[in-house]
Amino acid sequence: MPELRKDPVVGRWVIVSAERAFGPRAFGAAAQQAERQARSQQEEALCPFCPGREAGTPPEVLAYRAHGLPPNGPGWTVRVVPNKLPVLRVEGSLEREGVGLYDRMSGLGAHEVVIESSQHRVRLGDLAVGELEQIVWAWRDRIHDLRRDFRLKYVLVFKNDGVVAGAPSTHPHSQLIALPIVPRRVAEELEGAKRYFAFRERCVFCDMVRQELREGGRLIYENGGCVVFAPYAARFPFETWIVPKQHQASFQDSPRQIFRQLGEALKVALFKLDRALQQPAYSFTLHNAPFQDDRSESYHWHLEIMPALAAVTGFELGSGFYINPTPPEESARYLREETPLGL
Amino acid sequence: MPELRKDPVVGRWVIVSAERAFGPRAFGAAAQQAERQARSQQEEALCPFCPGREAGTPPEVLAYRAHGLPPNGPGWTVRVVPNKLPVLRVEGSLEREGVGLYDRMSGLGAHEVVIESSQHRVRLGDLAVGELEQIVWAWRDRIHDLRRDFRLKYVLVFKNDGVVAGAPSTHPHSQLIALPIVPRRVAEELEGAKRYFAFRERCVFCDMVRQELREGGRLIYENGGCVVFAPYAARFPFETWIVPKQHQASFQDSPRQIFRQLGEALKVALFKLDRALQQPAYSFTLHNAPFQDDRSESYHWHLEIMPALAAVTGFELGSGFYINPTPPEESARYLREETPLGL
Repeated sequence: MPELRKDPVVGRWVIVSAERAFGPRAFGAAAQQAERQARSQQEEALCPFCPGREAGTPPEVLAYRAHGLPPNGPGWTVRVVPNKLPVLRVEGSLEREGVGLYDRMSGLGAHEVVIESSQHRVRLGDLAVGELEQIVWAWRDRIHDLRRDFRLKYVLVFKNDGVVAGAPSTHPHSQLIALPIVPRRVAEELEGAKRYFAFRERCVFCDMVRQELREGGRLIYENGGCVVFAPYAARFPFETWIVPKQHQASFQDSPRQIFRQLGEALKVALFKLDRALQQPAYSFTLHNAPFQDDRSESYHWHLEIMPALAAVTGFELGSGFYINPTPPEESARYLREETPLGL
Repeated sequence: MPELRKDPVVGRWVIVSAERAFGPRAFGAAAQQAERQARSQQEEALCPFCPGREAGTPPEVLAYRAHGLPPNGPGWTVRVVPNKLPVLRVEGSLEREGVGLYDRMSGLGAHEVVIESSQHRVRLGDLAVGELEQIVWAWRDRIHDLRRDFRLKYVLVFKNDGVVAGAPSTHPHSQLIALPIVPRRVAEELEGAKRYFAFRERCVFCDMVRQELREGGRLIYENGGCVVFAPYAARFPFETWIVPKQHQASFQDSPRQIFRQLGEALKVALFKLDRALQQPAYSFTLHNAPFQDDRSESYHWHLEIMPALAAVTGFELGSGFYINPTPPEESARYLREETPLGL
């Protein structure tokens, strides 16, 4: 069983997934290259995420398909399945214990794959808005289901696309990891937003949306529900955030229309990034309120997109300090004015 | 002039270095590949870090060479020069201002390169202990000099080695960035260590050293002054820390003998990692007390080494949450028992 371990200094939790363990020989550059090639060849021929090969995945936990079609067969548009090699498992109980000065917890949770399209080779930015909307709904529906387990505190929704960003497969998919803890970054955001609220009695994200719409220099796109902009203190070139205009801590409890608006904003953002940067590797992460804070006045869900243009170095990881060679005003101007909308 | 910008939610400072700015076209995969090749070819022929080409760098700020030899000429063993494309500059004054809800600061600081050897192609782990000791002394001497500038709060010392970890040159070098702020990760460590001290009246790093020496399962090497071990909540496969046995907040104020002991421990750690992982790309960062906390009872300087075995994805960056497929007990056992010492 995988376990969660806590760094005794900064309090960061790490999944140590011994079930996935591989020895030092697996890490030689040659070994990695060979593994990647084998995986990519196998995957072309026999992708278990493609329609007609549903038996190659664990039974689905959600799928959108035409009325009357049986589960675990073709005809779906979005399909969610448990990860075959989960980093956390739902079985067992949540045990916490000390190990000398250290703290550990059993690796209880869930790890699911959202197969975003029936097409094997397609960029998310090239899908129709309605298809993006379905993906967003799948995240929402799965979070609603997973929150019923009272041992879980948070569901991480993220996507890694492309070789540099570390994606293991080319069939488009995002992932959900349900956790018995609140991830460090989200906890930091919650605390920071609370401090801002204590001082100003306003949500910092609402203030950010107002200022970005007023100033316009970092604005990339807006629709009725969402603002797409390059954040003021962007860590990476072309870092792009999507923030709903209306205050809402909890993604899954948002009004229905926001899922279409988010789907459209995500489509525009990814289409523009693909055109500007020649289909870069990228990642995105949904930042959402933990279940226990889903009515927070100070927290505000949003989506952060990070093109993987340069390798993240130990400098950034070791220091928590970033150097961004592209001012967000420049990347926003380029995305806003020199790339098509794609709608 | 570059500027420092603060994320209004989590308080993270980012250097936005417009002087290094490059447009979106610089980021296509083909453009990056071409640039890397050009850089590597040029560098082979005309490396400005090689002896005899001292005029190709800004005038040195420190060098260790035989008595009587003139500065900025050959004969040195370690040489420190300002970075030609600094991310921060010492000129100008430290200005802070608000921009609506955001905060910025002028990009005041220093950015230096420690040329670690006169040999162009050499792995740090293959240098002699005495050579490593000199590198460590160079960090110390530069920090002592930079701390005299009262506008500066911290000096980041780090190294990126190898393509995956994002190193721009193959001639071995580490870097120093002197900052008017305390980097986020160090601030978090300080706070965490203070909380631990408040609760237990002991330094958490001292406790860690004691437990690692007693348990031995994550121990890789020890000498009279330093312990080398895989941390309990390692974020990455083969992550390795070097921690001095005696409590000391400030690296640069440590007793003289520690610099030799750190040099030896660093040599052993890097030699073993090179043998175990076939000369991996890696980074390390010195974690040191900020100048204002240099007598802290709760903070304890140390060095964190991170082999760059897998690309860091947006998942980690977006969530602050890590999944480590190699338990630190496994990597430590391998490094301890199945690789030579190299001494």
